[in-house]
Amino acid sequence: MQMRTRIGILGYGNLGRGVECALRQNPDLELAAVFTRRNPESVKILTPDVPVYPADKAEQLADKIDVLILCGGSATDLPVQTPQYARLFNVVDSFDTHARIPEHFDAVDAAARQGGKVGIISVGWDPGMFSLNRLYANAVLPDGADYTFWGKGVSQGHSDAIRRVEGVRDARQYTIPVESALEAVRRGDNPALTTRQKHTRECFVVAEEGADKARIEREIKTMPNYFADYDTTVHFISEEELRKNHSGIPHGGFVIRSGRTGWNRENAHIIEYSLKLDSNPEFTSSILVAYARAACRMNRAGQTGCKTVFDVPPADLSAKSGEELRRHLL
Amino acid sequence: MQMRTRIGILGYGNLGRGVECALRQNPDLELAAVFTRRNPESVKILTPDVPVYPADKAEQLADKIDVLILCGGSATDLPVQTPQYARLFNVVDSFDTHARIPEHFDAVDAAARQGGKVGIISVGWDPGMFSLNRLYANAVLPDGADYTFWGKGVSQGHSDAIRRVEGVRDARQYTIPVESALEAVRRGDNPALTTRQKHTRECFVVAEEGADKARIEREIKTMPNYFADYDTTVHFISEEELRKNHSGIPHGGFVIRSGRTGWNRENAHIIEYSLKLDSNPEFTSSILVAYARAACRMNRAGQTGCKTVFDVPPADLSAKSGEELRRHLL
Repeated sequence: MQMRTRIGILGYGNLGRGVECALRQNPDLELAAVFTRRNPESVKILTPDVPVYPADKAEQLADKIDVLILCGGSATDLPVQTPQYARLFNVVDSFDTHARIPEHFDAVDAAARQGGKVGIISVGWDPGMFSLNRLYANAVLPDGADYTFWGKGVSQGHSDAIRRVEGVRDARQYTIPVESALEAVRRGDNPALTTRQKHTRECFVVAEEGADKARIEREIKTMPNYFADYDTTVHFISEEELRKNHSGIPHGGFVIRSGRTGWNRENAHIIEYSLKLDSNPEFTSSILVAYARAACRMNRAGQTGCKTVFDVPPADLSAKSGEELRRHLL
Repeated sequence: MQMRTRIGILGYGNLGRGVECALRQNPDLELAAVFTRRNPESVKILTPDVPVYPADKAEQLADKIDVLILCGGSATDLPVQTPQYARLFNVVDSFDTHARIPEHFDAVDAAARQGGKVGIISVGWDPGMFSLNRLYANAVLPDGADYTFWGKGVSQGHSDAIRRVEGVRDARQYTIPVESALEAVRRGDNPALTTRQKHTRECFVVAEEGADKARIEREIKTMPNYFADYDTTVHFISEEELRKNHSGIPHGGFVIRSGRTGWNRENAHIIEYSLKLDSNPEFTSSILVAYARAACRMNRAGQTGCKTVFDVPPADLSAKSGEELRRHLL
């Protein structure tokens, strides 16, 4: 049997734990070590007999790890960590601050080239699988329009924004695509949609005892950037209800391209990709793991530098050989 | 401005005409010549000032064409043509006989390597875009089940089979996915579906005057392989009605993967890709054109041999640079 590809996880939150779970579904990969910035003694992982090390020990274990999956956040962790570790490891991250991808790419590219490694950035579902679908659909239907809808799903950022309102103890916010807008796009109407016409926002809020609910609702609904441009619904519920009915982290969404072909644009086509996910972080982790396999393969084939999902041949994501893939999936 | 990539078309039927239309939507590509096995004088193409040559002249024009798109049929044309032309040209074909893909791959691979060219085979939507979606979804959710549904759309093979029934003047057959089966898959039920449970077949038949319609209907519904395993509906209509309401070649379908993640498989996920196409051949042609761009790029980058959609990095399909793609589509 071939040697298994040795994976390291840096950062053991929802995403890191998701990577650990996903590795168990991929027998050609194995979890070699978890690195944490917390006290390693305090971190209990699920896999037996796998060591947990302090993050600053990672560099000493460079020859024991084929790919390091970086499971930190995009705001402050990854802009530093990905270039830092790409000098020593093949790395994969889920950097998702769209506007800052070009500079992150450049930093990771320089580091990975210097180290002779491959760094695949912005891996997940958006950016990631959604981006791939936008690219394929644009290449196939150059004369057309793109639509991306998110949800129904929990937005962590919006939930956090609600929690910062005075008198709010806890909250969960769902982003919901507007069904009639989706239908218009699917019909090929090519509508021009405002922010308000694409998504609604539904908030479940646990208020502090005696808090002014009318004020809380008003402050949420008028909050700039987060809620003011949307039709927002606010429900006040109990803490038990929140725990019982809103503890999951579901998400999903739709990427649709509507385009035309024919000498006189006489034929219409709709390409639609959609996700319905019980667990946003576990799904993202599963994608990270597939791209970790690709990072190792591409580096073994002599490639170096920063890559995105756009640069990775699909076959490199699979444990199966080219021959098996052609026989069973083509 | 960069030199445009020069495309040749071999075979000017529905697919070849679709390639011609698609090229007009891609300003970095140009139609350089059409090759036909018919008398070139009898073939009127849409693009002004582009020559139509006899097929056997193609070899003499090898240095005028960057990629030759082969628009023949899978039954008898492509098994011969693709290896033949892959010695002299980068080629793309839409070979769609699933069971024979491995041998076709080997033949094209040997020829393309000998000629130092790239040949991309089995390009279209199934095989093609559907295959890609099966591969991505399998790589991301290894613990899951695949479902492919086709339609609503015209099956040329089934329409032809009906036309061979005695007393039938003309016919059009639609393959229709069973909505309740689709819904069960989308719910994550992971149903085991028989042929009959996945698709129904609807036939529009123009009978010869005085023909025995009851016998025609019976012969259609009991026809082995084509109809016997399906719930089939037969409608007798007039020739005008067929021309008026059934002259298009729409198609489409769904690729769905239903999978689970989590340490105890506690979370379910659905990945769905679907197409709704007014013109099956024009959509296939549009895909062929995007892969022609990739064939040229991969060959210029030093690659040779046979490839499938699994081997082509997505970025190679786009006219945009890596930087533009990261900035606008990632």
